[in-house]
Amino acid sequence: MSAGKFASAYVDRVLDPGYKNWIRLFEAYASKVHKAHLCMLSEQGIVAGDSLKRGIEETDRKFSEPGFLPEKIPQGMEDLYFLYETELGRQVGEENAAWLHTARSRNDMDGTVFRLALADRMEHFIDRAEALCRGLLERCKAGEGELTILFTHGQPANPSTTAHYLSAILLDLLEDCHGLAKALEKVDKSTMGACAITGTGFPIDRERVARLLGMDGLVVNSYQAIASSHWLTAPAQALKALMLDLGRFAADLLHKTSCEVGLYGFPDDLVQISSIMPQKRNPVIIEHLRIRAGQAMGLCAGIEDLLRNVPYQDVNEGSDAPIAQFLEAFDYAEAALDLAAATFAGMVADQARAKEIALSFGVTTTELADTIVREFGIGFRAAHGISAAFAKSGGRKESLRKAFLEKCGRELPWADEKIDAVLDPWHFVQVRTTLGGPSGTGMEAVYAEARRNLEFLKDILDSRTARLREAEAELAGAWANLA
Amino acid sequence: MSAGKFASAYVDRVLDPGYKNWIRLFEAYASKVHKAHLCMLSEQGIVAGDSLKRGIEETDRKFSEPGFLPEKIPQGMEDLYFLYETELGRQVGEENAAWLHTARSRNDMDGTVFRLALADRMEHFIDRAEALCRGLLERCKAGEGELTILFTHGQPANPSTTAHYLSAILLDLLEDCHGLAKALEKVDKSTMGACAITGTGFPIDRERVARLLGMDGLVVNSYQAIASSHWLTAPAQALKALMLDLGRFAADLLHKTSCEVGLYGFPDDLVQISSIMPQKRNPVIIEHLRIRAGQAMGLCAGIEDLLRNVPYQDVNEGSDAPIAQFLEAFDYAEAALDLAAATFAGMVADQARAKEIALSFGVTTTELADTIVREFGIGFRAAHGISAAFAKSGGRKESLRKAFLEKCGRELPWADEKIDAVLDPWHFVQVRTTLGGPSGTGMEAVYAEARRNLEFLKDILDSRTARLREAEAELAGAWANLA
Amino acid sequence: MSAGKFASAYVDRVLDPGYKNWIRLFEAYASKVHKAHLCMLSEQGIVAGDSLKRGIEETDRKFSEPGFLPEKIPQGMEDLYFLYETELGRQVGEENAAWLHTARSRNDMDGTVFRLALADRMEHFIDRAEALCRGLLERCKAGEGELTILFTHGQPANPSTTAHYLSAILLDLLEDCHGLAKALEKVDKSTMGACAITGTGFPIDRERVARLLGMDGLVVNSYQAIASSHWLTAPAQALKALMLDLGRFAADLLHKTSCEVGLYGFPDDLVQISSIMPQKRNPVIIEHLRIRAGQAMGLCAGIEDLLRNVPYQDVNEGSDAPIAQFLEAFDYAEAALDLAAATFAGMVADQARAKEIALSFGVTTTELADTIVREFGIGFRAAHGISAAFAKSGGRKESLRKAFLEKCGRELPWADEKIDAVLDPWHFVQVRTTLGGPSGTGMEAVYAEARRNLEFLKDILDSRTARLREAEAELAGAWANLA
Amino acid sequence: MSAGKFASAYVDRVLDPGYKNWIRLFEAYASKVHKAHLCMLSEQGIVAGDSLKRGIEETDRKFSEPGFLPEKIPQGMEDLYFLYETELGRQVGEENAAWLHTARSRNDMDGTVFRLALADRMEHFIDRAEALCRGLLERCKAGEGELTILFTHGQPANPSTTAHYLSAILLDLLEDCHGLAKALEKVDKSTMGACAITGTGFPIDRERVARLLGMDGLVVNSYQAIASSHWLTAPAQALKALMLDLGRFAADLLHKTSCEVGLYGFPDDLVQISSIMPQKRNPVIIEHLRIRAGQAMGLCAGIEDLLRNVPYQDVNEGSDAPIAQFLEAFDYAEAALDLAAATFAGMVADQARAKEIALSFGVTTTELADTIVREFGIGFRAAHGISAAFAKSGGRKESLRKAFLEKCGRELPWADEKIDAVLDPWHFVQVRTTLGGPSGTGMEAVYAEARRNLEFLKDILDSRTARLREAEAELAGAWANLA
Repeated sequence: MSAGKFASAYVDRVLDPGYKNWIRLFEAYASKVHKAHLCMLSEQGIVAGDSLKRGIEETDRKFSEPGFLPEKIPQGMEDLYFLYETELGRQVGEENAAWLHTARSRNDMDGTVFRLALADRMEHFIDRAEALCRGLLERCKAGEGELTILFTHGQPANPSTTAHYLSAILLDLLEDCHGLAKALEKVDKSTMGACAITGTGFPIDRERVARLLGMDGLVVNSYQAIASSHWLTAPAQALKALMLDLGRFAADLLHKTSCEVGLYGFPDDLVQISSIMPQKRNPVIIEHLRIRAGQAMGLCAGIEDLLRNVPYQDVNEGSDAPIAQFLEAFDYAEAALDLAAATFAGMVADQARAKEIALSFGVTTTELADTIVREFGIGFRAAHGISAAFAKSGGRKESLRKAFLEKCGRELPWADEKIDAVLDPWHFVQVRTTLGGPSGTGMEAVYAEARRNLEFLKDILDSRTARLREAEAELAGAWANLA
Repeated sequence: MSAGKFASAYVDRVLDPGYKNWIRLFEAYASKVHKAHLCMLSEQGIVAGDSLKRGIEETDRKFSEPGFLPEKIPQGMEDLYFLYETELGRQVGEENAAWLHTARSRNDMDGTVFRLALADRMEHFIDRAEALCRGLLERCKAGEGELTILFTHGQPANPSTTAHYLSAILLDLLEDCHGLAKALEKVDKSTMGACAITGTGFPIDRERVARLLGMDGLVVNSYQAIASSHWLTAPAQALKALMLDLGRFAADLLHKTSCEVGLYGFPDDLVQISSIMPQKRNPVIIEHLRIRAGQAMGLCAGIEDLLRNVPYQDVNEGSDAPIAQFLEAFDYAEAALDLAAATFAGMVADQARAKEIALSFGVTTTELADTIVREFGIGFRAAHGISAAFAKSGGRKESLRKAFLEKCGRELPWADEKIDAVLDPWHFVQVRTTLGGPSGTGMEAVYAEARRNLEFLKDILDSRTARLREAEAELAGAWANLA
Repeated sequence: MSAGKFASAYVDRVLDPGYKNWIRLFEAYASKVHKAHLCMLSEQGIVAGDSLKRGIEETDRKFSEPGFLPEKIPQGMEDLYFLYETELGRQVGEENAAWLHTARSRNDMDGTVFRLALADRMEHFIDRAEALCRGLLERCKAGEGELTILFTHGQPANPSTTAHYLSAILLDLLEDCHGLAKALEKVDKSTMGACAITGTGFPIDRERVARLLGMDGLVVNSYQAIASSHWLTAPAQALKALMLDLGRFAADLLHKTSCEVGLYGFPDDLVQISSIMPQKRNPVIIEHLRIRAGQAMGLCAGIEDLLRNVPYQDVNEGSDAPIAQFLEAFDYAEAALDLAAATFAGMVADQARAKEIALSFGVTTTELADTIVREFGIGFRAAHGISAAFAKSGGRKESLRKAFLEKCGRELPWADEKIDAVLDPWHFVQVRTTLGGPSGTGMEAVYAEARRNLEFLKDILDSRTARLREAEAELAGAWANLA
Repeated sequence: MSAGKFASAYVDRVLDPGYKNWIRLFEAYASKVHKAHLCMLSEQGIVAGDSLKRGIEETDRKFSEPGFLPEKIPQGMEDLYFLYETELGRQVGEENAAWLHTARSRNDMDGTVFRLALADRMEHFIDRAEALCRGLLERCKAGEGELTILFTHGQPANPSTTAHYLSAILLDLLEDCHGLAKALEKVDKSTMGACAITGTGFPIDRERVARLLGMDGLVVNSYQAIASSHWLTAPAQALKALMLDLGRFAADLLHKTSCEVGLYGFPDDLVQISSIMPQKRNPVIIEHLRIRAGQAMGLCAGIEDLLRNVPYQDVNEGSDAPIAQFLEAFDYAEAALDLAAATFAGMVADQARAKEIALSFGVTTTELADTIVREFGIGFRAAHGISAAFAKSGGRKESLRKAFLEKCGRELPWADEKIDAVLDPWHFVQVRTTLGGPSGTGMEAVYAEARRNLEFLKDILDSRTARLREAEAELAGAWANLA
């Protein structure tokens, strides 16, 4: 069992940190894997399960006793599993204990344990992300009547509503969530039975083990089961995609909440002050959202790049240290979700300011041009020219009338009130009934898509929950049947 | 139309390169967009299509005349589209020409043009990748009887077959191809009708335009249509995932083809020599595969990171320069596919060497341990100990017998021939009937999965082809109906 | 010479693109290397130089004849060098020609050729970057009297001057330029004489070749000369650092030039319009600066990551394809420099707007607090409290007087004019005589540092120019001495 | 002081983690900064130091009492500094305490605190890296007589020595260490006196504070002092460069230690076994070295990319959360150093195997060709052809003689012993007296360079130590002079 004394650098930098990672993050899953594996071995008539059943229960109990496991890995031990087998041997005899390791290897066992741990972390995260999206949908609905200004290239472009604005990022976030759910499928596959890399000569049932563990199938090719990195890169990419969107949203909102723009403000409980500048109110929550998203992205990219040019083999890139570091990415990402949720909930639209920007920067002149096109049947380019002249004049109606006369050869037959009505930002919003536009009609398709995506996401999460519940019952039954 | 004189740095570094990119990569798609947009405008009764129809046909003809377009962008022009509208104006009158731009903006137009170009490039690429996978499946079948050695942590671990080895990477590559097909769906969505960002007051039909363009639906929210980066990041991530796998495979195969290992060789037409070392035969094709894959990955990561902290707005990160650079990633990636195809097709298994490695490094002792477990009912750990003693002795049978006697208290009742048979690498392979293992039985599930995935991929590609063909006919019909 | 027929994928994806890269980018340097190598061989008495001298001159002449070199690499040729040796053989006899390759390999030759090409590209780039910095220094001086507002966390914080603002980024850019110059040193080292990896048994003089090539020394260890990647990663990191700063500056300036903030504007020749929104004036030059910088960064990161986990050996990551791609990074980066130069030169400060922001957002209240501390000897926290009350009141003087009375127990003995003077943003700037602060006194150290760094940079560039000129003369002399 | 109640997400995700980071990593440096700042304020006659001196001492004492600081940040507090000022106020009166914050801001204070913490971490790391290099130099010397084989493109190329091989990576590592030392200079600069961003109206002495803190000067421009990211990106790039080299070395050594190659082995205390494959001896230490290096690289890239497109302003990317994450990079990197040190020390050359590879793969045929060139004055290409024929024949001497006769028209006048001597790998090494080659003569320049670089590095570290010691004394003196 023991491999002799290891060099101290190796113990301090590899074995001991690994031992601690296993205790902290993975041991609970390992125990589940032991049980599912033993049930299958027994059902297949390969191993008699009775004494091992008692031994596993006893060893698990010991392992969970505070102080039972030494603080530091004992010399000569490679990992926690060696301690497990040693204790199991103490309970049921060494010879007997060793039967548990029939038709498996640390390769397939570790793979499945890491996948189980990662899948649970991901499910929890997707759950939170789904809640964020639900909250954001509510915020959209509450913002249907909130006038705002949307920008292109950093310049005010069109009036719109908070609902229209936020539902855009909502749909992107939902797509990201689906990406995560898709990645979870790749994680949630059993590698058990692949053994070292080629399976075994024992008549095992790989599918049974996967089912008892509540996993979503298995990695079919036994070499691929050990060598593939999709279970790491797929979630890393999916999480990065979500964080990238949050980071972009943060950059956009920072501009909208800067005091010169002032389209949205925050309540005091989300604002920091300056220790030296008495006037400052910094909505740094958005900055911290950007940073947490960025920190998560860094770790995700780190996982991807860690695998660059690493042989397509069993390699330790898929072992405890990188997995533990990857799990941290979800902590940063969850912090980003929480800050995003507080941001969405806390942001308060300043509609007077929206109107002011609309008028002073002439953002409704597009509609002026369009209305001229529609009402007088002249081409868009000419109408654009008339409106541009008006915009250039700083919104003077005489300039508009003069430009119209020049281009069309007749007087503009509109009263001043009509001009004002055409230029009203709220009018701008309401005529935009285009599918996906900001008016009530336009938003119908947006809400429908958001709801469809939310349902789809919920179904995925629910079906995993159901599968896990079922599997737990099945494992408990199989376990009871041992002996 | 003209925006005055532009600064020379701006012309040289932005406008002119953009103009050239448009001529080279995007203009053909823009013309299609003009047509679909005009058909819809006309069908909706917004614009009378007859003279514009003629104008577009004439302008397209002119644009395709060699020498018609100036080498360098003329001063005062922002982009190729301004030249298009100018020429159209010359054909049908400026007033008339401007009608074409009703209810659209360069924002939604550019978005759709870039997406169409990228989608076509991707489809072509996926097609090639699918062909690679089909070829690889054939190579697997041809390699069913080829003994090889698979490694873990760089050390020989288990005997297997070329079929088992290559089908592992095949299944991973197929998963990557599905990822690309999934990403293609996100690219293949119309943004038309989003106009600048909020749609329009004209009664347009966004779905009609999407259908005429043969796209797979539209980006619903009009702000999202312009601001989202999923159509760039999703394919970038998907392509990177595929390249990462090829890079890992290259690293693994480099080891297997190194002359000391020698499990696979290459024919002369894939091997370079040294200008100074007469004995060298460098299978650098694998290195070049790694490099092309790496260059593609770099460009993919570049696209993702380009969007870091960029405001969730209409930004020029989604314009011609980054798209053109991203398209290069597919060129590098396609080179990697070609080199991979040549590698798969060219690699020749040296089975004598496989057998030699199997015996000299004792890679079948796992099976020895397992057989002892199965035949004598002793625990795995004890059997492992007996086999380890045998391995340590350099494969001396007396050592095996002695260790068995010590552990089991009785003589090993096997003739020497039986021991040899148990240790035979091909026997090792054949008893591994585990689902997904290397034996014929084990491989059944692997082939089934590969075929299922290939069919699924083919269906996706076929359905896009069919949709495009249908759309082309529909657009031709609608175009004929104008006037 | 010929290595037989190569597989078509290999020719199309590796050999032919490589051949074209060599013709386009590297051949001129190869010729210089041939000459320096031959001079040294002859001087050391290893090879008689006369006929080879003539052969090289003739071959170079042929190579530069249009149409002499075939469009596509001929079958059986690995690279352009094989064609060179073939032609040389035609000129002076094959036997004779082969003498040129004595005591060298394509490994050390290629390394030196690539380094020479990269070093020249870098020098040209640093030259441009230095000019940008000189121009920026001029812009700082012109902006000494321009009031502006600087931000923290996206909120207005302190008044300052354009000079103070721009000289901050100037000093960072100069540091980046030094980083590039430092990296150039690592590139500019000869690998000649390392041969394949271990040098040679011929009595060569490596230092002589380095000197004749005008390089800054040599890579001492012959294995390192071939295996090291510092000559690629060091410039990649240095260039990325510069681009990162430009990108951050762009993000800052985009905010300052947004129409709601309006601290800086641009002349019409740097502004684009909208095809649909008549009022828009988009200073997208800053966006394109961000994008070019980002594209360059992507390529730099690509080079670094290309080398991840690549064996510390002679590998093709250091060959024509990655080098050619890396050279593109300098093109993008140079575009960024040009756009930055146009931006610096074009940005026009709106001082009325600066004053308005200063007053409406109370950015000078820090100075109010400080003056209260200085004049009345009360602690900073109390003074901060008084100023905060004033800021909160929207700048009403009675609130200030009331808060002062409450905190200090006496009346504020200042006339209203005194209060206004204390709050004047220009006063704020002028009292900040801190070393490195915005006042004239504060800026002295800033200018001194900028000038020192510019001189230092110029010295580096000048000394390379001088070294190259000297080497050219020395090589010409040695060449003439042959025969 | 208090800013009211903060939202719980903000407390949990930003303020409280920040508070804990400060206690764990930064508070000790903050105290030093308080002291240096107070000494300067007092020396400049701005603030009377006596009571504050007592207050700071008392507050520091309290802060270091276990249990004094609450576990979680109290509501209404932004950070640990607010608690500090509160406690200081309790000690010396609020009014009095506030004087300490005269002429500074959290901006310049935090910047300097973070830089001090990072600089100390870096110095410690460079110290370890320097020790690694010294050890490696010893390993080189011990390996002068160890024959080994070096590879190009994964194939055996030339015989050499362990000394020559390892000294190549040593010189690269030393260059990396210098890069780190260079980056440390940028970190080790004071930002004190920059206050928020523009300095102050108080007559402070920025250089005095920098000197009392033992820093290597100051960031001159006060805006740059707060906005620059060089102090983060420079060390991130430098650390990444070092890790990249270790990763490449690991990839190379993995090949050399694979059992088929077997040029180096490891003692048992660095080798892991397999739980299922009795024959396995995995030198996974090299894999873990690659992984730790990769994890560090990921964090370094994360820091760089975190700053992408972040406004050139005071941003929280330079605050506790990213700094704490960046510090982790040094932990991973130090693990990589330790594993590298154990690897260098533990690797045992198998010289019999080196000789065997040399002969069976004909790696000395280059020398055969060279000797033919030298002794018979024929061109390199012809000699190369003769040697290639010999190599192709599998080293049969008759083939060599036959080829010589064909090419040269005469018999090869060498006895068989002479041929063997020419082909002897150790002879190959010894004749390579080229500067930087593997022979004793060749290695002289290598050792000289290594020693020069080690000295230079040591000087840098020593001078920092001396400066810090001096500064400590100066601060102690200044502190004593208060009152």
